[in-house]
Amino acid sequence: MAGIDYNIVKNIGTVSQSPKGWEKQLNVISWNGRAPKYDLRDWAPDGQKMGKGITLSLEELQSLKRLLNHMEELQ
Amino acid sequence: MAGIDYNIVKNIGTVSQSPKGWEKQLNVISWNGRAPKYDLRDWAPDGQKMGKGITLSLEELQSLKRLLNHMEELQ
Repeated sequence: MAGIDYNIVKNIGTVSQSPKGWEKQLNVISWNGRAPKYDLRDWAPDGQKMGKGITLSLEELQSLKRLLNHMEELQ
Repeated sequence: MAGIDYNIVKNIGTVSQSPKGWEKQLNVISWNGRAPKYDLRDWAPDGQKMGKGITLSLEELQSLKRLLNHMEELQ
């Protein structure tokens, strides 16, 4: 991920942890100095290596929350 | 994404749509014939091209739901 500059503005929480210590985290991250976005991504134990992830806007998180709250298998 | 075989088992819902018609969707997808997983990903209008995304287990979705339901900015 050379050349990518990021700043973790806020750690919202951890969704899961793998046996090797990688964590799937929901954070607020500023990428390359741009406006911060919500970010759901895997992180290595030292926080220095990142895995696959996606960024989401506040509106997208709101829609996702609605979907999750309507899923029967999550009741 | 040559060589990747997938089957969309269930469309749970759409989180957002871009001006060009790409949709961020939550689906249940079986990748390469393996057990289906929850999948949050961008899709082109025709559903044939996929963008970045992540897969999640039921337990991870449950944790994510809890996090989202506790976020002040989503109340």
